[in-house]
Amino acid sequence: MNKQNEIEQLIYLFSKLPGLGQRSSRRIVLHLLQDKEVRLKMLRDTIERALDKVNNCKICGNIDCFDECYVCRSQTRDSAIIAVVETVAELWAIERSGVFNGRYHVLGSDLSISSTKNPSELKLPQLLQRCVKDNVKELIIATNSTLEGQTTAYLITEYFKSLNIKISRIASGVPIGGELDYLDEGTLSAAIALRQPFE
Amino acid sequence: MNKQNEIEQLIYLFSKLPGLGQRSSRRIVLHLLQDKEVRLKMLRDTIERALDKVNNCKICGNIDCFDECYVCRSQTRDSAIIAVVETVAELWAIERSGVFNGRYHVLGSDLSISSTKNPSELKLPQLLQRCVKDNVKELIIATNSTLEGQTTAYLITEYFKSLNIKISRIASGVPIGGELDYLDEGTLSAAIALRQPFE
Repeated sequence: MNKQNEIEQLIYLFSKLPGLGQRSSRRIVLHLLQDKEVRLKMLRDTIERALDKVNNCKICGNIDCFDECYVCRSQTRDSAIIAVVETVAELWAIERSGVFNGRYHVLGSDLSISSTKNPSELKLPQLLQRCVKDNVKELIIATNSTLEGQTTAYLITEYFKSLNIKISRIASGVPIGGELDYLDEGTLSAAIALRQPFE
Repeated sequence: MNKQNEIEQLIYLFSKLPGLGQRSSRRIVLHLLQDKEVRLKMLRDTIERALDKVNNCKICGNIDCFDECYVCRSQTRDSAIIAVVETVAELWAIERSGVFNGRYHVLGSDLSISSTKNPSELKLPQLLQRCVKDNVKELIIATNSTLEGQTTAYLITEYFKSLNIKISRIASGVPIGGELDYLDEGTLSAAIALRQPFE
């Protein structure tokens, strides 16, 4: 089969998307090409509109169809609490939980130990400006519970420690519904170390 | 979250692709949007080229970037043997196996018992023309081993029985590397009924 043609190019591109491989990508491309005039054109048109409309929010870095995202535009959100997340994926995950009514700051990436990133690349100066301007009372650091996420969390606390802002970290512990028997040792030891008074 | 915007539309479209759901689709769309100018544009451009170039082969119904697909154009393929498949997916699967050197006929769909499809919708008159024109000696019916596939196979044999053409069906049986213990009863009883002399 000719590997250089448009079909193979499409399969290759899809196979590089997260969670997809050669086989699943081929299935998807075949599905799209089997009703090309409807399915592929609709995908092309939707991508076209997204390219035109979708932008990063100027304030927090979220992805939305406006210059300021729906969280930053909202009048009912609490501006005094900002959750600091690594990427938009974590912002969306917290939004789905529906329990957070503050605003966000998207770092754009984590700070791996080996990388040469510095505070400005995590847009910490912008976050500092927002803290001062909006009179922020609390920063909730919601970076991932990985080595990189914890390094990033540490760097942020260092950066903001001179300010009079409460800095907290989302809790580590046993997932709700989780069985201790199936948990890794790291999570279990964190859950024991961070035990809460029974109320 | 605003469900009507371009981001949600893109997530919805991806979630309808085979093998993808809401969660995997969201991951993919986020990945594309996080580097929109590179990733999403490249996907848009590749889809654009595919829309422009990819067509169904006029002879067999395969998908290719030419009016006649690479199988039908080939000078080394045996025109006297045609494998009849339900969709392009099965054609590609047989091509990947690399053992078949004949040509193909893509029916375009299966013939489910409940459907109102008739021979012309499976392009059987066109296949008949090819059989006469190319002096075809054998039709290998390679429809899926499902009820619909077998109904379709039966209909094809009925349609061609008046002609002097050998009609065969790809073998049913134990998959190579398969363990009998894990096989369903249908496959196992077919494998026993269709047993071959030991040579």
